[in-house]
Amino acid sequence: VELADKVLAGDRRAVARLLTVVENGGAKAREVIRYLYPHTGRAHLVGITGAPGTGKSTLVNELAKVFRAQSKQLAILAVDPTSPFSGGAILGDRVRMTDLAGDSGVFVRSMATRGGSGGLASTSGDLIRVMDAAGFDLILIETVGAGQGEVAIAATAHSVVVVEAPGLGDEVQAIKAGILEIADVFVVNKADREGADRAAATLTMMLDLGQGGVNHRLLHHGVLMDVMLRPGSSAQVERWRPPICKTVAIRGQGIAELVEALAGHRAYLQASGELARRERARLANELDHLLREHLVSRLLADVDRTQLAALLEQVVARTLDPYQAVDQLSRGILS
Amino acid sequence: VELADKVLAGDRRAVARLLTVVENGGAKAREVIRYLYPHTGRAHLVGITGAPGTGKSTLVNELAKVFRAQSKQLAILAVDPTSPFSGGAILGDRVRMTDLAGDSGVFVRSMATRGGSGGLASTSGDLIRVMDAAGFDLILIETVGAGQGEVAIAATAHSVVVVEAPGLGDEVQAIKAGILEIADVFVVNKADREGADRAAATLTMMLDLGQGGVNHRLLHHGVLMDVMLRPGSSAQVERWRPPICKTVAIRGQGIAELVEALAGHRAYLQASGELARRERARLANELDHLLREHLVSRLLADVDRTQLAALLEQVVARTLDPYQAVDQLSRGILS
Repeated sequence: VELADKVLAGDRRAVARLLTVVENGGAKAREVIRYLYPHTGRAHLVGITGAPGTGKSTLVNELAKVFRAQSKQLAILAVDPTSPFSGGAILGDRVRMTDLAGDSGVFVRSMATRGGSGGLASTSGDLIRVMDAAGFDLILIETVGAGQGEVAIAATAHSVVVVEAPGLGDEVQAIKAGILEIADVFVVNKADREGADRAAATLTMMLDLGQGGVNHRLLHHGVLMDVMLRPGSSAQVERWRPPICKTVAIRGQGIAELVEALAGHRAYLQASGELARRERARLANELDHLLREHLVSRLLADVDRTQLAALLEQVVARTLDPYQAVDQLSRGILS
Repeated sequence: VELADKVLAGDRRAVARLLTVVENGGAKAREVIRYLYPHTGRAHLVGITGAPGTGKSTLVNELAKVFRAQSKQLAILAVDPTSPFSGGAILGDRVRMTDLAGDSGVFVRSMATRGGSGGLASTSGDLIRVMDAAGFDLILIETVGAGQGEVAIAATAHSVVVVEAPGLGDEVQAIKAGILEIADVFVVNKADREGADRAAATLTMMLDLGQGGVNHRLLHHGVLMDVMLRPGSSAQVERWRPPICKTVAIRGQGIAELVEALAGHRAYLQASGELARRERARLANELDHLLREHLVSRLLADVDRTQLAALLEQVVARTLDPYQAVDQLSRGILS
């Protein structure tokens, strides 16, 4: 709690320590979240996602510089094992990041994504909450735009930037895993390379066809979402057409335009009421997720381990199919 | 059941129809699985995974041709929205696949990965079961090697092929999301391109460092796995060192060597007892997953929707944090 007060007062070192507490989970983490929660909801959450090789991290780095020039306080959460922010780069990428080193207005934190996607979303949510309570104006969430879990994290941001680059397995990369549908701003990075115009044209074409954009997002959710999102969720909001920014991040080109596009999107979110809707959807999604985790962990603690081992033997021997085994197990648990 | 008998008799059209039944889920799917389950466990399951742009699909296509020349019956399950097998390609990729069209010894099925990763693993497991019962010698499971869910699917195969290609965002791609650790065979595709030797050398180096290979796999699992895998799981098996195959799939080069490497791995699995261990781990993992799904869906049906909506309002208003809300909800459910 003392640490949490320091965080609220803007102590950066306390932020780092509290993030570790929250990442470790347990009762302490929950206490921290309970304490900080009323102070959250102020930062602009910007998700940045794209395939490896699109130059995402360099882009984040350049974005950070521009925001810093505007005197914004900035936190970066890297949920991407290939990101140099996460220490995942083996070649030379990490060097580039030293531009930001020593600037107390930029706070960088990485998050491991190993070990199952289950807890990823909830942990990242709590880390973001701590950063939010700490008073950062912007929180950039960098994820590799590939797995469902990582896409989901990006999708919870207020503004989602989808980064592409020419020549990476054609335009096919854009289509995968619903990543198009979550974009609020597109970036074609490495725009000095051959194929950049074609990549941008493909995106324009898709937008013309009505794919992508705000109306398609937040559809892929849990059982409870229908209940939670009913009030007001069907209201027609003025439609946002994702702009397409061409950048050459490594030379800092096009970054100012991207910053402007993000500011424009933020203004749209507020004017249209979409911000409140997203915030609500984000929290509903999180409740749904936490409830599942909670129920499962409570119930699995009661599993009869001897029965479990015996049933597995039968499944292995193919005298019982997995569904029958689960039926028997759950009958024991839920009775 | 009649359809299931046709599947067991090798009727390909019945396979297609039954896969749809299983994919749709519900009581019918469970009945089918129950009926077919005793007939499963014979096919060699080969997972093929790699980033978009590595030429995975072309490789699968060429592999299929070589297996067909050996008179093997072959099924392909594409769990990859960018795969031409899934109809995800927008450019010209799909054309290449017509090589296989009209060959009744090759059966192709794709699976959508949209809409949350939750059910992905269990549905794909059931689709594979149907193919297995239908008597295919080999089942190739193509996944984009990026998301946790998709890696998990690949990891359930008996033999996992990890495909790389030079020049795709450096060697960094290999490191991500634990994909190295699940490889039984590495392929450096597009081996005629610059950087192929370096890519292969990097892999060799990593193997020398003891990363990758059989001992690291199947670690990322549920609460119950410790119980289920205890018997025999700590037995030392002769270690398999993943071979590195260089291929130029688009010209059919190196494919015969890859087929040989897969046969070698299959022989190793059988001789070492590792096959039984993997089969057991696969089923334990599936039980764990199904049990969670089952418990959650049973319990969420009992949620008080009025209470839920009211709690969400409080969370949105920040008078209650998400964990407190979940506590209140689950108290109502579990009492």
